[in-house]
Amino acid sequence: MLPDTAAQFIFQEAPLAHLVTFNPDGSPHITLAWVDERDGELLLATLFDQRKLANLRRDPRCAVSMEGQHVRPPGLREYLVVHGTARVEEGGAPELLQTLAGRHLGPDVAFPPMPNPPAGYVTHIAVDRVTGVGPWTD
Amino acid sequence: MLPDTAAQFIFQEAPLAHLVTFNPDGSPHITLAWVDERDGELLLATLFDQRKLANLRRDPRCAVSMEGQHVRPPGLREYLVVHGTARVEEGGAPELLQTLAGRHLGPDVAFPPMPNPPAGYVTHIAVDRVTGVGPWTD
Repeated sequence: MLPDTAAQFIFQEAPLAHLVTFNPDGSPHITLAWVDERDGELLLATLFDQRKLANLRRDPRCAVSMEGQHVRPPGLREYLVVHGTARVEEGGAPELLQTLAGRHLGPDVAFPPMPNPPAGYVTHIAVDRVTGVGPWTD
Repeated sequence: MLPDTAAQFIFQEAPLAHLVTFNPDGSPHITLAWVDERDGELLLATLFDQRKLANLRRDPRCAVSMEGQHVRPPGLREYLVVHGTARVEEGGAPELLQTLAGRHLGPDVAFPPMPNPPAGYVTHIAVDRVTGVGPWTD
């Protein structure tokens, strides 16, 4: 489970997720995305099928790093790294994107900016291990 | 080589590097660090030997993701991902850290904040491939 301090960090600081998945040859694939937390898991929303989803269906291991705003002595910002296991579920992407758009773009922004968006995919990441530097590692 | 647009991004926006290396079991190790660019390579400074350096000596493949400040339609910020090959050289860390502290903490901050810091290590990352979303992929 994600520590409460890490869940609060995601709600309050709205960090971007640097998502690492594995290509078929074992090389890392990295993309950035909005991220939410629910019931101790990380959630990502994707309108269209993408390589990261194909990677996660083949190998569900993944890692997500997120940078915070608070600077710790001697000068590096706090950050959260989650190592986890993903499952990709169909549907629900527009609703989750609307929630996240409120946090990232403003409370009155309608998102996704298109009529009749596809149902897309929601990726749930179950937390195996938390690292980084912050209240979640103190 | 790193595209000029990516080098300018590093100088102007001073992003943090999310560095992905590989543990002996193939799992990803992720840490955040200040990053510089010189002669088309990425540079990281480390005062003390760390797991990321042991990982890079064993397997020099790595990837670095960096988030920008400019937002692209429909709403995600630009980001730069560099896939590269690292070599770890001894010495030079305090000088590089002082340069990077000027960019991240302010021009008058003395860094590292200790007398007689160790010479440490500078990691050079030769660029194999650039991805992300920004002028470097347009």
